[in-house]
Amino acid sequence: MYNQYCYGLGSASSCIRELFEYGLQQAAIVGKENVYDFSLGNPSIPAPAAVNKAAMDIIQNEDSLLVHGYSSAPGFADARDAVAKELAERTGTEIHGSDLYFTCGAAPALISVCSALHIDADTEILGIAPFFPEYRPFIESTGSKFVYVPADTDQFQIDLQTLEKMINKNTQALIINSPNNPSGVVFSKETLMQVADILTKKSQEFGKPIYLISDEPYRELVYDGIEAPWVPSIYHDTIVCYSYSKSLSLPGERIGYIYVPAKLTDAKNIFAAIAGASRVLGHVCPPTLIQRVVARCAYEKPDLEAYDVNRKLLYHGLKEIGYECASPDGAFYLFAKAPKGDAKAFSEKCKQKNLLVVPSDDFGVEGYFRLCYCVSKEMIERSLPIFAEVFADEPE
Amino acid sequence: MYNQYCYGLGSASSCIRELFEYGLQQAAIVGKENVYDFSLGNPSIPAPAAVNKAAMDIIQNEDSLLVHGYSSAPGFADARDAVAKELAERTGTEIHGSDLYFTCGAAPALISVCSALHIDADTEILGIAPFFPEYRPFIESTGSKFVYVPADTDQFQIDLQTLEKMINKNTQALIINSPNNPSGVVFSKETLMQVADILTKKSQEFGKPIYLISDEPYRELVYDGIEAPWVPSIYHDTIVCYSYSKSLSLPGERIGYIYVPAKLTDAKNIFAAIAGASRVLGHVCPPTLIQRVVARCAYEKPDLEAYDVNRKLLYHGLKEIGYECASPDGAFYLFAKAPKGDAKAFSEKCKQKNLLVVPSDDFGVEGYFRLCYCVSKEMIERSLPIFAEVFADEPE
Repeated sequence: MYNQYCYGLGSASSCIRELFEYGLQQAAIVGKENVYDFSLGNPSIPAPAAVNKAAMDIIQNEDSLLVHGYSSAPGFADARDAVAKELAERTGTEIHGSDLYFTCGAAPALISVCSALHIDADTEILGIAPFFPEYRPFIESTGSKFVYVPADTDQFQIDLQTLEKMINKNTQALIINSPNNPSGVVFSKETLMQVADILTKKSQEFGKPIYLISDEPYRELVYDGIEAPWVPSIYHDTIVCYSYSKSLSLPGERIGYIYVPAKLTDAKNIFAAIAGASRVLGHVCPPTLIQRVVARCAYEKPDLEAYDVNRKLLYHGLKEIGYECASPDGAFYLFAKAPKGDAKAFSEKCKQKNLLVVPSDDFGVEGYFRLCYCVSKEMIERSLPIFAEVFADEPE
Repeated sequence: MYNQYCYGLGSASSCIRELFEYGLQQAAIVGKENVYDFSLGNPSIPAPAAVNKAAMDIIQNEDSLLVHGYSSAPGFADARDAVAKELAERTGTEIHGSDLYFTCGAAPALISVCSALHIDADTEILGIAPFFPEYRPFIESTGSKFVYVPADTDQFQIDLQTLEKMINKNTQALIINSPNNPSGVVFSKETLMQVADILTKKSQEFGKPIYLISDEPYRELVYDGIEAPWVPSIYHDTIVCYSYSKSLSLPGERIGYIYVPAKLTDAKNIFAAIAGASRVLGHVCPPTLIQRVVARCAYEKPDLEAYDVNRKLLYHGLKEIGYECASPDGAFYLFAKAPKGDAKAFSEKCKQKNLLVVPSDDFGVEGYFRLCYCVSKEMIERSLPIFAEVFADEPE
């Protein structure tokens, strides 16, 4: 006598978690240096020094009752103002603290937004393959349907024709994730402008807004001078979900926000619905010490040097062996083609050599594998000969 | 085109919040010293020194990547073990870290448990008046019904006869909250044993477990040598929801846990369903720095002296004036009878004198008002003549 859906979600095995656990077991047997674990997207560069400095200073010098006391549900007003100020300066747009709803990271942000946009059992929220696998339970648990546009395997941008065809009267929103997990690709301004055109046209056709949910935990993780375009400047009905997990290397501290632009259709009511959703999802008032820390560190930028070194080493190493990879412009993921097209078989073969790579099936596309390069440079160096071995071993 | 239920929850006015905001406004006009705000249950004693000391030490001396990195979904194994060890010692029962699921405070804990126990639209979860008003949205948002046993206004224990009559085949659980918000009453061992008898009998009658959800954020806040009985030792199908918000004065840091005893009926499956619920509610892996802090502070106890001084001063002061109060054995609330029985009118009359008290209607009982005595002693002293004035002013 318990909820079968929740039970299913809680007892389901996860391919990524299983690979990670296998890696820990193998490390105990063959030695840590002989396991090449590219399975987990956990930041490998520490939080900027300013983060811990701010935390220490707040604990030492501010009133403990205020530091650890409740904030209002969407967060401290001054913390939201500090974050909004930096965001406004950087994007050259008008953003106020009152447009931000602080959350315990990007997951609650996405779930609150999807809950706020759920109308009935016919409601659809669209994704773009490859996608973060948790989108499905996040959306389905609110009662809506998750449907997705198949991957554009040429560029890992967006198959716009199919997107346009898939939008119908029940489509409430499209979720995009750029820089992308798992592909590492950054959606270009051109792609986003075409998406905006399609959404505008379809919003008019169906006489209701079709929102764009921009899931941006990797926004700051871009390389080679590339920038992730600011989506609300391209499409006015954009809701941004952000997390400091990657940009400040604070994944465990659960802090992020939802940005509901004032110009959004029904902005005030959507904000209220998000507040109501957060209330019954149980994550109003995100952790207060960390709220104050991110407010002080609003202008901090991650030091991406280590990721960039890894990225180039792995990308060029794999290319030289003969692997085909998506353009690795952002995040800390590399998405490569399984030489003979069977991602699960390839991942299994790698696993036999303690090389742990995630097959792409759960991301909504077949025939690829994901590598997280938030690892040590040494591990990448040691892994390249193994990648060469498994590549050479693939039958013609 | 947004979710009307969430919108309603997010835009609803809250009596408590309105009183609090009114107090802030009035303070600006008549001076802070002339406003007597008993509306908010925010701890007024700071976190024990050990809490900030532990946080500083962890930040300074532990690996930043581990401190701020993801924990597993139910929390760090060593932190869960540390908390379980203290709990096992204190209660004299066998409790393991693996029985605990860390959460972002008591709210997500309750919501996850209610989600895990939701079967269909007929599912009922019972409460006992007076109750924490958020129980209703927490339960209704999962799709279950919230029904409650009317208050036992003699003792503010539990009307056992009515409880027994209200349990039916759709009853999945009973939520209790002791020490109680808003009454300040602690349920006696005798009351709890009778509740256990009823639940055991009804579980047999309906051939399925009826769970007891023990919501215990005030467990450590008890006075005069009274102890809140350890509920799982009285009824085996008890699930405990706990928060450090009050015991360590950390309400803003969002840390607590669900304890699923190994002996619970379907323990493993209920634990998995809770894990699944937490996943789609978006609060797996509670804030990691604070997880480590509470693990180090598992043996810390709150210094209740200031609350106890306030409690006695207010309770005896009100009694002398002529007010009738529930027995104030725990938490930091006093629950008193509105002299002429109309709580809203009485609260409104008090408000005219900048004395802010919460009428009991939202707690599921009429004719009472709640006072939070987590305030300064001076404010209580200054408020007593005002309480006398409004009492004398009540028409016979």
